[in-house]
Amino acid sequence: MELAQSLQQIQPSYIREILSAATAEGVISLAGGLPDGDKFPLALMEESLLSLPNRAELFQYGNTAGYAPLLTHFKARFELPDTHTSLVCTGSQQALDLIARAYINPSDNVVMEAPSYLGALQVFGLAQANIISVSQEADGPNLQELEQCFAEQKPTIFYAVPDFHNPTGVCWTLSVRQKVAALCEQYSVTLVEDVPYRELRFTGEALPLVSSFCPDHSLVLRSFSKIATPGIRLGVVTGKAESIDPLITVKQAADLHSSIPMQAVLLDLLTHDGFDKHLSDLQALYKSRYEVLATQLTAKLPKYCHFNQVDGGMFIWVTLPPCDDFALAQAAIDNNVAVVPSSVFYQQGEKVTPALRLNFTNASVEELAIAVDRLVAVISAECGE
Amino acid sequence: MELAQSLQQIQPSYIREILSAATAEGVISLAGGLPDGDKFPLALMEESLLSLPNRAELFQYGNTAGYAPLLTHFKARFELPDTHTSLVCTGSQQALDLIARAYINPSDNVVMEAPSYLGALQVFGLAQANIISVSQEADGPNLQELEQCFAEQKPTIFYAVPDFHNPTGVCWTLSVRQKVAALCEQYSVTLVEDVPYRELRFTGEALPLVSSFCPDHSLVLRSFSKIATPGIRLGVVTGKAESIDPLITVKQAADLHSSIPMQAVLLDLLTHDGFDKHLSDLQALYKSRYEVLATQLTAKLPKYCHFNQVDGGMFIWVTLPPCDDFALAQAAIDNNVAVVPSSVFYQQGEKVTPALRLNFTNASVEELAIAVDRLVAVISAECGE
Repeated sequence: MELAQSLQQIQPSYIREILSAATAEGVISLAGGLPDGDKFPLALMEESLLSLPNRAELFQYGNTAGYAPLLTHFKARFELPDTHTSLVCTGSQQALDLIARAYINPSDNVVMEAPSYLGALQVFGLAQANIISVSQEADGPNLQELEQCFAEQKPTIFYAVPDFHNPTGVCWTLSVRQKVAALCEQYSVTLVEDVPYRELRFTGEALPLVSSFCPDHSLVLRSFSKIATPGIRLGVVTGKAESIDPLITVKQAADLHSSIPMQAVLLDLLTHDGFDKHLSDLQALYKSRYEVLATQLTAKLPKYCHFNQVDGGMFIWVTLPPCDDFALAQAAIDNNVAVVPSSVFYQQGEKVTPALRLNFTNASVEELAIAVDRLVAVISAECGE
Repeated sequence: MELAQSLQQIQPSYIREILSAATAEGVISLAGGLPDGDKFPLALMEESLLSLPNRAELFQYGNTAGYAPLLTHFKARFELPDTHTSLVCTGSQQALDLIARAYINPSDNVVMEAPSYLGALQVFGLAQANIISVSQEADGPNLQELEQCFAEQKPTIFYAVPDFHNPTGVCWTLSVRQKVAALCEQYSVTLVEDVPYRELRFTGEALPLVSSFCPDHSLVLRSFSKIATPGIRLGVVTGKAESIDPLITVKQAADLHSSIPMQAVLLDLLTHDGFDKHLSDLQALYKSRYEVLATQLTAKLPKYCHFNQVDGGMFIWVTLPPCDDFALAQAAIDNNVAVVPSSVFYQQGEKVTPALRLNFTNASVEELAIAVDRLVAVISAECGE
């Protein structure tokens, strides 16, 4: 069989090869976006997991929209207005895919910041969307570019990760949030606000969701991979009921519904007395790792490298002088440290800022310190002292 | 946002309304395709479920293709040649969706028997395929029509449910299997062999998979919803590695992977000493229910109704004289018995054989007997004595 045209545009994913090499013996990996498996809240999930053999009703076919008690919980947890609703998805990745399938025709314009989340590039690539990039500044997207793009290109969707962006860690300021929301309303663009890292803030106060300023022009994707566990594959998309309904139609064809026992366990976890402490413990742990990584990088990186300070999330973004970022990442693996080169976060053919994405959530502080030494040696060798 | 063109072709699903009405107090439902929830093998799954809190590695991100030990098990269980491989999916429904996304362009020809599985009609409708129907006979598809279609229309895929078809219960004979496989090879058509009911045979010996006669021109979809439990949402597609690889690419964008804890529990169930007995108990139970339903129908249906004897599966298909099958199904619900009218199993605009699909796996023998009385009263009132 020949591949469908939509698939012929999909590039091989180099990040898979990097992640595969990153698991080799002796390699310290700052490459993946993995939460720390030792901190999964299994103790808080235990009672729920142990109850499953006695809850046969969870093992029958369920509703496509999700396990009803979980949907009720989301309504309250996310303070959804009566006109809004939730759809439980097989990870927030699926929510994004359903949105693209329900609303994007081939050649439709979709706006993203550059660089951007690889999984979103894949989804919109499969949908054969025309992806338009706007530059990312230290406080969010370049607003002038964004307005010009909205006005001239009439995009359907603006996909964004406003809280601790993947890969750059950028968190939009309040002012940028309000202005982007106003632009979405003015130009009737739907904001797809992807917030997997939002609850991983370890410094400062949470800012309002961008979509709180344009609730009827937005869909919000939430993930439970970072605050619960990724293996259960659960996320949720919220928005106006009339915008969610078509997603339910697509999901019915895509997988009927997501695992009901896992949805019940998630509900039990989110409503467990210990969940808030689990979250603050996680934030404190990641903060301590971030601080070690940032301190070591500040002390040891060559002067021509720069990196962003972050207030949360999972990543530090180190910019480099002009160089072959792939060759640098390969040399790093040869020196037993894995990182992700910036090219993978851009569309093919797009102007790439040479940089490396470093994850700080899945290595110990001891490993992080060693990793910096190894990485600095490679950068110095490849780009000069 | 406007709906994508692919969604504008999707008809509202009347079966949802019927299934919703079927859950009303006092209604005996023969409408759904539900396995008996009281017979879920939770006792066999218990040890595995109880072990989950101590298996943190199952809760981390996993491989898109599936949990490695489960893939190894499938290799042996399904006796896959070295050139073939498995992809674990979020239900076999997802496997079908991934196939359509990877291999079907809008307007490509896809062949199905008529009537056909509603979920397949939805998937190929979303893919904007041109669905070509061939008639179904008592022993499988009309071979003359099928060959003519293959020769003249050059379809990409022939989607089929050869074991205890949904909705008709038809099981292809050995001779038909061999001839269809030969046609697929001759005309380079990929057979998508969907076998969710294959292990629910309660009479006679299993026949070889059609794909066993054309292993390199086929993909096989297996479901664990009927023999394990539907709520865990797990199925698997097997075929040539080069045909499975593109499905993995699409799945990575669609949901990254399916729930790993559920995959581990499924593996423990399939390798449990008690699994074969669970399966034979289930077959015996469904056989006893089928026999009551068939006996009651034979005794009580008006002479102008006919139904197929089946050797397994979940459904009996009762054909009717010319009538409004939807009105009949609605009258049945008003008389407290729910069934599915045949129209939902055909493409819009296609010639429909008036019929009703009756499920016999989710009601007790007492309920089945009462249901027949209620149904016969409605048929007699609507179609004459």
